[in-house]
Amino acid sequence: MPDPAAITEAAARIAPHIRRTPLLDPGGGAFGVPVVLKLELLQHAGSFKPRGAFNRILSAAAPEAGVIAASGGNHGAAVAFAARALGLHAEIFIPEITGAAKRARIVSFGATVTQTGATYAEALAASRVRQTQTGALEIHAYDHADVIAGQGTLGRELEQDALGLTHVLVATGGGGLIGGVAAWYAGRAQVISVEPEACPALHAALAAGRPVAAPVGGIAADSLGARQVGELMFRIAQRHVAGAVLVPDEAIRQAQAWLWDRCRLVAEPGGATALAALLCGAFTPPAGARIGVVVCGANTDPATVT
Amino acid sequence: MPDPAAITEAAARIAPHIRRTPLLDPGGGAFGVPVVLKLELLQHAGSFKPRGAFNRILSAAAPEAGVIAASGGNHGAAVAFAARALGLHAEIFIPEITGAAKRARIVSFGATVTQTGATYAEALAASRVRQTQTGALEIHAYDHADVIAGQGTLGRELEQDALGLTHVLVATGGGGLIGGVAAWYAGRAQVISVEPEACPALHAALAAGRPVAAPVGGIAADSLGARQVGELMFRIAQRHVAGAVLVPDEAIRQAQAWLWDRCRLVAEPGGATALAALLCGAFTPPAGARIGVVVCGANTDPATVT
Repeated sequence: MPDPAAITEAAARIAPHIRRTPLLDPGGGAFGVPVVLKLELLQHAGSFKPRGAFNRILSAAAPEAGVIAASGGNHGAAVAFAARALGLHAEIFIPEITGAAKRARIVSFGATVTQTGATYAEALAASRVRQTQTGALEIHAYDHADVIAGQGTLGRELEQDALGLTHVLVATGGGGLIGGVAAWYAGRAQVISVEPEACPALHAALAAGRPVAAPVGGIAADSLGARQVGELMFRIAQRHVAGAVLVPDEAIRQAQAWLWDRCRLVAEPGGATALAALLCGAFTPPAGARIGVVVCGANTDPATVT
Repeated sequence: MPDPAAITEAAARIAPHIRRTPLLDPGGGAFGVPVVLKLELLQHAGSFKPRGAFNRILSAAAPEAGVIAASGGNHGAAVAFAARALGLHAEIFIPEITGAAKRARIVSFGATVTQTGATYAEALAASRVRQTQTGALEIHAYDHADVIAGQGTLGRELEQDALGLTHVLVATGGGGLIGGVAAWYAGRAQVISVEPEACPALHAALAAGRPVAAPVGGIAADSLGARQVGELMFRIAQRHVAGAVLVPDEAIRQAQAWLWDRCRLVAEPGGATALAALLCGAFTPPAGARIGVVVCGANTDPATVT
């Protein structure tokens, strides 16, 4: 189970390879309480995913047969980026819903790409068949302790750079990022999950008391469309995730437009989902709150944000 | 003449109204020496210009007749933004080369916009005729001590946040930004001017020994297309600007593409011009250099950067 010590070790391990992404205080009193944005969309490969990918690879024995991963797109880009940096071959499986921009990004980092299956879960199944043939190291997109610890380094940076946050809003797909962030904060701030109404995997799991299959749809499906959250993250979530809210796709589009209009930031739908909760009122900050919002990905056609 | 004391006063004056923009270390050893980007494109209104606009307005007696400015677009947006924040009416004159995106931005902040004249210089002349009729406070885009001191606050932040820089690359249009940054550093770092070959106003002025009319053209003309640099900034430049290099438009486009591809940042041509000098070799860092690059504007159609 990933814990703060593992996250601190991960931070040291991946530091030469990732960006310590900056914060932006948008100012202007738009939210009634102080809000700071963690600009993780400026990370290498355009999302937070290299944190977990590097930590997973660097924690394993050198994989002579290369690495293999299934992904909606961002994790695949991150694994391809990390593999190139470390001199390894990468094979990435993406589902048919993944758009051309994300596919091109993975290819640009030199990976072999196979596009198959309607959803991430089907691409994952195909990648596992292939893995038994090649013996490559599987880099799971979220349900692995080293991946979660890597993503948790974002929470560590946030706590170091933004003092005194009371709440941290994080988008949830398979749950690697929020699992890592919640494991880091361990209750020192309330970590709030935000999911699209069309991809409510953690919301459904918390209601059921265990990870369960949930719908996958809507505009953020290619980044948040895991069919169910990971077993590992779920145990963390039960202890350390303080709330799980849902937002409609329209609120996600509005958050993308807000980020461009007010901050000249291009976020993909999944990257804007946490902010959407604040803008549409799905999460209402209590008086005295100090909010951190993770803006976690930008792998989209920038023409779509205006 | 703007000096560090005036810049420190300006910083205190405008602090409630502007963003302290973050830095990004792109990493990856792309340049052979350490490079840090000052993400001033994330400033309110999409460029550095609100620094000078707020300082100019807040340093003057309350302008009952409102404010008036001529601008290629970014200064106009900043004056409109500042005027709205301070409860003042703004009238903005822009030339015909200014694109629809910049015009819409100015309008969105509630200003009255007049589009007239082929270049910034002609729009400025028209605005001055109008100013004699209304008595509004003129907010010059660059050639005013309070404007230059306001822009200089960017240099102050950069020196505080990025220790030990040896060189700072800044794009030059009319010269307000580089004038302020050079006045702040006063030789503690080498401040290097970067201009498009098609808009070489400072390069021409330094060669002539005085501000002279220079061509206005190319892809960055709407932000860097002052016909000649300001008198005030030129006196600063003669003392404190260590070099002035030119870059072709193609290098500016490549810098825009680099910023999107590597960092998921959308910069307008003028905003990417300083980085272009590093990427195309117009400026070659000496061994041991530590480079700061100001990415100063993002008011463009994001579809144009890919």
